[in-house]
Amino acid sequence: MKRTKKVNMDGSRLKVIPLGGLEQIGMNITAFEYEDSIVVVDCGLSFPDDDMLGIDLVIPDITYLKDNAEKVKGVVITHGHEDHIGALPYVLRDLNMPIYATRLTMGLIENKLKEHNLLGHTKRKVIKFGQSVNLGQFRIEFIKTNHSIVDAAALAIHSPVGTVIHTGDFKVDYTPVYGEAIDLQRFAELGKKGVLALMCDSTNAERKGFTQSERTVGHTFDTIFHEHQGSRLIIATFASNVDRVQQIINSAHKYGRKVVVEGRSMVNIIETAMNLDCISIPDNTLVDIDRLKDYPDDRTVIITTGSQGENMAALSRMASNVHRKVSIGPNDTIIFSSNPIPGNEKAVTKVINELEMKGAEVIFQDVHVSGHACQEEIKLIYTLVQPQYAIPIHGEYKHRKAQAGIAAELGIPKENVFMMNSGDVLEMNEETAELTGKVPVGTILVDGLGVGDVGNVVLRDRQHLAEDGIMIVVIALDSATGEVASGPDLVSRGFVYVRESDELMDEAKELMEKVLDSCTSRGCTDWGKIKTSVKDALSDFIWKKTKRRPMILPIIMDI
Amino acid sequence: MKRTKKVNMDGSRLKVIPLGGLEQIGMNITAFEYEDSIVVVDCGLSFPDDDMLGIDLVIPDITYLKDNAEKVKGVVITHGHEDHIGALPYVLRDLNMPIYATRLTMGLIENKLKEHNLLGHTKRKVIKFGQSVNLGQFRIEFIKTNHSIVDAAALAIHSPVGTVIHTGDFKVDYTPVYGEAIDLQRFAELGKKGVLALMCDSTNAERKGFTQSERTVGHTFDTIFHEHQGSRLIIATFASNVDRVQQIINSAHKYGRKVVVEGRSMVNIIETAMNLDCISIPDNTLVDIDRLKDYPDDRTVIITTGSQGENMAALSRMASNVHRKVSIGPNDTIIFSSNPIPGNEKAVTKVINELEMKGAEVIFQDVHVSGHACQEEIKLIYTLVQPQYAIPIHGEYKHRKAQAGIAAELGIPKENVFMMNSGDVLEMNEETAELTGKVPVGTILVDGLGVGDVGNVVLRDRQHLAEDGIMIVVIALDSATGEVASGPDLVSRGFVYVRESDELMDEAKELMEKVLDSCTSRGCTDWGKIKTSVKDALSDFIWKKTKRRPMILPIIMDI
Repeated sequence: MKRTKKVNMDGSRLKVIPLGGLEQIGMNITAFEYEDSIVVVDCGLSFPDDDMLGIDLVIPDITYLKDNAEKVKGVVITHGHEDHIGALPYVLRDLNMPIYATRLTMGLIENKLKEHNLLGHTKRKVIKFGQSVNLGQFRIEFIKTNHSIVDAAALAIHSPVGTVIHTGDFKVDYTPVYGEAIDLQRFAELGKKGVLALMCDSTNAERKGFTQSERTVGHTFDTIFHEHQGSRLIIATFASNVDRVQQIINSAHKYGRKVVVEGRSMVNIIETAMNLDCISIPDNTLVDIDRLKDYPDDRTVIITTGSQGENMAALSRMASNVHRKVSIGPNDTIIFSSNPIPGNEKAVTKVINELEMKGAEVIFQDVHVSGHACQEEIKLIYTLVQPQYAIPIHGEYKHRKAQAGIAAELGIPKENVFMMNSGDVLEMNEETAELTGKVPVGTILVDGLGVGDVGNVVLRDRQHLAEDGIMIVVIALDSATGEVASGPDLVSRGFVYVRESDELMDEAKELMEKVLDSCTSRGCTDWGKIKTSVKDALSDFIWKKTKRRPMILPIIMDI
Repeated sequence: MKRTKKVNMDGSRLKVIPLGGLEQIGMNITAFEYEDSIVVVDCGLSFPDDDMLGIDLVIPDITYLKDNAEKVKGVVITHGHEDHIGALPYVLRDLNMPIYATRLTMGLIENKLKEHNLLGHTKRKVIKFGQSVNLGQFRIEFIKTNHSIVDAAALAIHSPVGTVIHTGDFKVDYTPVYGEAIDLQRFAELGKKGVLALMCDSTNAERKGFTQSERTVGHTFDTIFHEHQGSRLIIATFASNVDRVQQIINSAHKYGRKVVVEGRSMVNIIETAMNLDCISIPDNTLVDIDRLKDYPDDRTVIITTGSQGENMAALSRMASNVHRKVSIGPNDTIIFSSNPIPGNEKAVTKVINELEMKGAEVIFQDVHVSGHACQEEIKLIYTLVQPQYAIPIHGEYKHRKAQAGIAAELGIPKENVFMMNSGDVLEMNEETAELTGKVPVGTILVDGLGVGDVGNVVLRDRQHLAEDGIMIVVIALDSATGEVASGPDLVSRGFVYVRESDELMDEAKELMEKVLDSCTSRGCTDWGKIKTSVKDALSDFIWKKTKRRPMILPIIMDI
């Protein structure tokens, strides 16, 4: 597939540098660098792993971009999901750069910037499909794709040494609900001209066949509405899937039901989509949740958040009887229009069980289609684009590896397929492509207002506290004599019921007194040594008695 | 389906009382009571939910059995899985009762009792299929079934007012690997004579069709062995699935590979199965893991624990490079002969990714069959048994509800199908069946050596500590003057890096000093009030500064 085209004479190469999103799902961000220009593609966040206790969000370390701030021409966004836009408010504080995105994507970004009081400080430009934006030595072209959110784009990143196509998250939907089908002609045209590299979504690369059209879910809704004309319908789905909401509204309109939208993120996104005409809602269809009681059950449908079993989302609150305005009963049919994201299976099942215990019917299978391309779609894109190099992106290692297998099947030489890690620098031109180095990358934890102030030490402590709690030993020492003025006092939290362990605590206190006596009699006044003796003795004692290892925290006060 | 048989004249009824296992998966235990006799069926444990921080195991509260200890004639066990035998060592300490079980089941129970030094104190009797044991007014008959562990039994619980059939966990396997197929004739015979109630496994009641025979996995192994003759094979499966291990050994023997068994629980169970002749291993097939290096890769297969991605299991240790004797490379093919149990999906995927990153091939689909009956098998059992009453057991609410639907389809009147909760008392005879009351039930948390000493308060504290850590304020008060003798000193753990938050801690300390001054100047010497002032002020301050809520623990010392 090698082609000869304009060759840059000084030998400069295009650098592709993923700054996140490869080891850690989500947190998608990639730098494209050519000489004095850097363009950033996407700027997403990850949700914390189970062992990141108390952490709200995870964002990428952008040290490399800050160190090269003068080169950074802007950030280009493929679509409006959190794993592609969520880190923007944090990253922009450190590195202000203009944002380029399609309409709904920009709408959702602006909501975020408003929340963080950054809207006024950030240059933004809405780009239409087919349009390009010039950023330094790059020209970035937005190409229409389909995905589980409206206005998703692939990017053609034109550089002096060739074009890289970055699909973003995508699927091929020949009959999309809103807007056009994916612009396959443009992919073909670019392929015909010659594409240096394809960076293609791997999420469903392990799945055979084709992903179904979003429209098929609409037919399923019609069937469900038809078969459940006597009951109230409650449909949970992803807040950002505007097309899904559109189809629920279509069915509701057809069957004469009023629609209530519930859940903060759902309300926000629908509002944004309405303002941008990405969703069309017949007059007198939407009603406020407070007016639910004015309509009989069989005349209403509630569209709600909580399809992933999220604790605080509206559906979970309904299921556990703490929603203030909706209570579930035998006349409700609840539809999960979603699949559980890996890790959420148990939470979803819990909500389903709770709903069924209240007598409701729950439908949770086959009312969803994926937003990602399966194997045949991936093959289609490769075949249209015919890239010289392939860089599987988006997905866990095993997904990206599966795409590498597909690329090989399609005849791309093994040495031209790059399984990259975050921080890897891939330098390429039409002659060669090679991994030439590493830039600093990492994850930054966000906890409340703190960005990066919780690290491994704090997480390790939280893990320790979570497992076995804490036992605090307070001792007041007379600084003049070195003798114990008060204490030792023992306080525990998260360890055992104090009442049930009086004896244990008494014994522990006695032991501490002995340890302190022994310190005093040896003339030891070094606080560090006293603390170590206290800690070791108490830790051994507790382990022997309980086979637990609470955190032991000796505190010495100076009197 | 009502029949007339011997009717007890005094109107005594059979009580069926599930003491666990319905709201909480696992922890299966049911009491059958008739006049002066109680028989317990199974005595299992649950594994802790995600929010039960630091908890090792969950066992049932057997207050009801202890209160009626003189009636309890024994415990009858259906099969040797942890959710059916795991609580025995804990329960037996409180309530010694004889144990009745089939051979392998008893072998696994005895391993447990040995570990807990209870073997000498516990009466045990091994029962063969087709045999019965008389326990007070009951006669309990063991009926052969099939399941993912050898020697699984259904029970016919014969009482003066009729027979209840309890299937345990089961499937219908016409071609089992070890022993006979399920004794369908006996189910039919009992059905013909008249069965009062059927308590049937619901785990797969949502799945259409029939569960495949265990033997089909053997064919899959043969294919995999045939297609991977050049590489080392590592197969992860459930330690207790002796038939699965047998089939791996069969394939290994056929293809001339030595077999290494790795992982403590795997080694233990295989040893027990070998001693009881439940598995047959050709001579010179098993080799010690230390001899692995003496054979070329393509002559060995390792059978290992860790198919659920468990952190400390052998396979996870291999994947993360911390296994002392096996390191993974491109010449390894790893087979997951298992499906992830709900909740383990992410952990399993993590291990798969790690293995693939080391260049290994990973096969994780379609090398497993379930051990539970699907819809057609459930229908078969109902049709053979023709019970008067149906009590779906084993499975989450939604699974049991699905079985209730099947029972209805088969013509059992709705009022004869009982969706029970733990603690419900169902009284029945041939005339009537009704829920008549509740007995105390609950879950007891095991943490290290502590059984029941961790309750909601401790868990809530652990949750709080896990989320945001702890901040401790120590103050020494002069008991004579009521003045501050030392402090306030602030110590935090799991909150923020102390170094990065010096300023925050300094400000907090200043604030604490002000609060104490104000207390002193108001003449307040009540420790409770001082603590509350300190706690409220610090909590507000930290929230405003960080949007976090660490646990605030004021400690006052008396000088």
